[in-house]
Amino acid sequence: MKSFHRWIGLVVTLLVSACTAPMVGQPANGMYSELAAKQGVANAQAGVRQVPAKTLPVPSVEVSSQVQGLIAGPYNPFFGSIPQTSGEWKTLINQRAKAAAAAIPAMKAKFNVSIEQTRIGGVNAYILTPATIGPNNRNRLLMHIHGGGYVFSPGEAGLAEAILMASMGGYKVVSVDYRMPPDHPYPAAMDDAMAVWKELIKTNDPRKMAVFGTSTGGAMVLALIHRAKAEKVALPAAIGPGTPWSDIARIGDTYETNEWVDNVLVTWDGWLGKAALLYANGRDLKDPQISPIYGDMSGFPPTILTSGTRDLFLSNTVRTHRKLRRAGVVSDLNVYEGMSHAQYIYSADAPETREAFTDIARFFDHFLGK
Amino acid sequence: MKSFHRWIGLVVTLLVSACTAPMVGQPANGMYSELAAKQGVANAQAGVRQVPAKTLPVPSVEVSSQVQGLIAGPYNPFFGSIPQTSGEWKTLINQRAKAAAAAIPAMKAKFNVSIEQTRIGGVNAYILTPATIGPNNRNRLLMHIHGGGYVFSPGEAGLAEAILMASMGGYKVVSVDYRMPPDHPYPAAMDDAMAVWKELIKTNDPRKMAVFGTSTGGAMVLALIHRAKAEKVALPAAIGPGTPWSDIARIGDTYETNEWVDNVLVTWDGWLGKAALLYANGRDLKDPQISPIYGDMSGFPPTILTSGTRDLFLSNTVRTHRKLRRAGVVSDLNVYEGMSHAQYIYSADAPETREAFTDIARFFDHFLGK
Repeated sequence: MKSFHRWIGLVVTLLVSACTAPMVGQPANGMYSELAAKQGVANAQAGVRQVPAKTLPVPSVEVSSQVQGLIAGPYNPFFGSIPQTSGEWKTLINQRAKAAAAAIPAMKAKFNVSIEQTRIGGVNAYILTPATIGPNNRNRLLMHIHGGGYVFSPGEAGLAEAILMASMGGYKVVSVDYRMPPDHPYPAAMDDAMAVWKELIKTNDPRKMAVFGTSTGGAMVLALIHRAKAEKVALPAAIGPGTPWSDIARIGDTYETNEWVDNVLVTWDGWLGKAALLYANGRDLKDPQISPIYGDMSGFPPTILTSGTRDLFLSNTVRTHRKLRRAGVVSDLNVYEGMSHAQYIYSADAPETREAFTDIARFFDHFLGK
Repeated sequence: MKSFHRWIGLVVTLLVSACTAPMVGQPANGMYSELAAKQGVANAQAGVRQVPAKTLPVPSVEVSSQVQGLIAGPYNPFFGSIPQTSGEWKTLINQRAKAAAAAIPAMKAKFNVSIEQTRIGGVNAYILTPATIGPNNRNRLLMHIHGGGYVFSPGEAGLAEAILMASMGGYKVVSVDYRMPPDHPYPAAMDDAMAVWKELIKTNDPRKMAVFGTSTGGAMVLALIHRAKAEKVALPAAIGPGTPWSDIARIGDTYETNEWVDNVLVTWDGWLGKAALLYANGRDLKDPQISPIYGDMSGFPPTILTSGTRDLFLSNTVRTHRKLRRAGVVSDLNVYEGMSHAQYIYSADAPETREAFTDIARFFDHFLGK
């Protein structure tokens, strides 16, 4: 019985040790807490950084209640469910598109924007006209490229951001409903965006035009400029790539630091990375048409960028900003407290949404001819 | 014996459960991995964010080898050792100052900057003159306020940033050696900075002057503008508060998200927070002279801000940027890939250091009278 007790004692001790092994009994090295001591030891040598598990509160100072609600939100529930077949992708895409499109009529009414479906350069597109066009904007036109990881938000589902911009900026907007995977991988989306751009500048002065979009839309804005430069097509007077997916691979610091922190994209390793591969369709992920960060940005139009401190694409955004600056391009970076990916477009009522779109509209106003 | 076995079995089961409770055997809910499934469950409800422990690689794309070295560096070894007495603070302060000051002669020689110690408005100060003053800069003067958490970098130890700016920007610079805790808490530092500013503008045109500094220096630049506005003293034509400690309390998203990620400051809970309390000396931490984010920023001069994606003060920086924008102030935000706190001033040889100081110098050149 005594030896059995000793044996059980050992088992219990080992299990307890296994549970508490990463903890130290008392702060060591004069550190103020056990965690600090443990972290100090784990990061005492040069190399990778070891970060402990944490619980992040919702920032509340100078963050509107609407944005606090977005920050506090649960993870996007399908972040880690990866469709395995074309059919599974389509089911997910259609399900999300239906929900997003259902919200459009109310948004249209709320923001007093009329929407006309049309075809431009052979591509399905929407013309958005706000009730009030800004006095400087009568001869101006914006082109919008929606986001959604190159797979989501077809048709009217992609129009929310365009409605916000038309209304808050007082601009007429053309939104491009480009083709997407699984049926249409690269270059279909870029071919469509380019076809609309080329058609629009036949009857509109590109010096009075800007192109904008968020996430995948932001990357496509940048890729469009690369392609227009290469094809010697006229460039817009300004661009607004919001939190652009400029490096489609998992390359960039905040893919790591903001993994599991961003509640919109959550991680590259879920549906997002699979969508990247689906879109690239075997093409090199460092091709500047796929990851526009790798292209030469000299000669780009003035560029306004928007992101958040929890954005998985914060590095995509700041790398783009620095690369533009290094190329001598006027570029304006805006980062919102606590926001995850693209949350500046997700609340129609947040003051920060109006602030972001007003900033973009003013930037365009500054650089677009009248 | 049987009941004893059952009892032990229960204990072992409970211990094993305690160890493995957060894990799941197989990916659940169609998630791509066990971690994703676990994270999905932990973040399925609105509220705080649960983030697992991680290992962060050193970002390598478009980050210079010098900055990669800074990012890979171990934690600042004394981040969590909190001096308990005035004497302990002085020992740490003097030890660090000695090391920092020892590096100044070589830096001075390398960057060809002459340094003259003097007194201005009764305050110890240094006049830095580069070998080459920019052609637009002959009648211009910059005032520098060093960083160091309101406790570190007295005397020559605070001059590294001023040397970089004088040399890379081609400006004459006056650096303020303000009084600090433990002997001199608030308002001594601000009194000194203000005394130097008032004295300098007796013989220099403030429209041809800018004020800059990093971290605590950045906060003091902002507080100086608040105070000059209140005292109706002339303002400089531009300011460059780099990653300013604009909220001295642990308020702001990246105090949380970048805790244990930033290898320079590491956490607010170590020496940093104690230095804050030492400086404030019982004053409300939301007093705009202590935490300048809480002051009215209307009428501020054009402002250039610099930070990094791993900076504990990224939120301090972006909150300042947005608050300035909301007040209608021209403000330019720059965020460097992978950098922790103030690392853009820590490598004399990194291309990013030259880039940051060149950007600040150009910003000043744009707004300062000749």
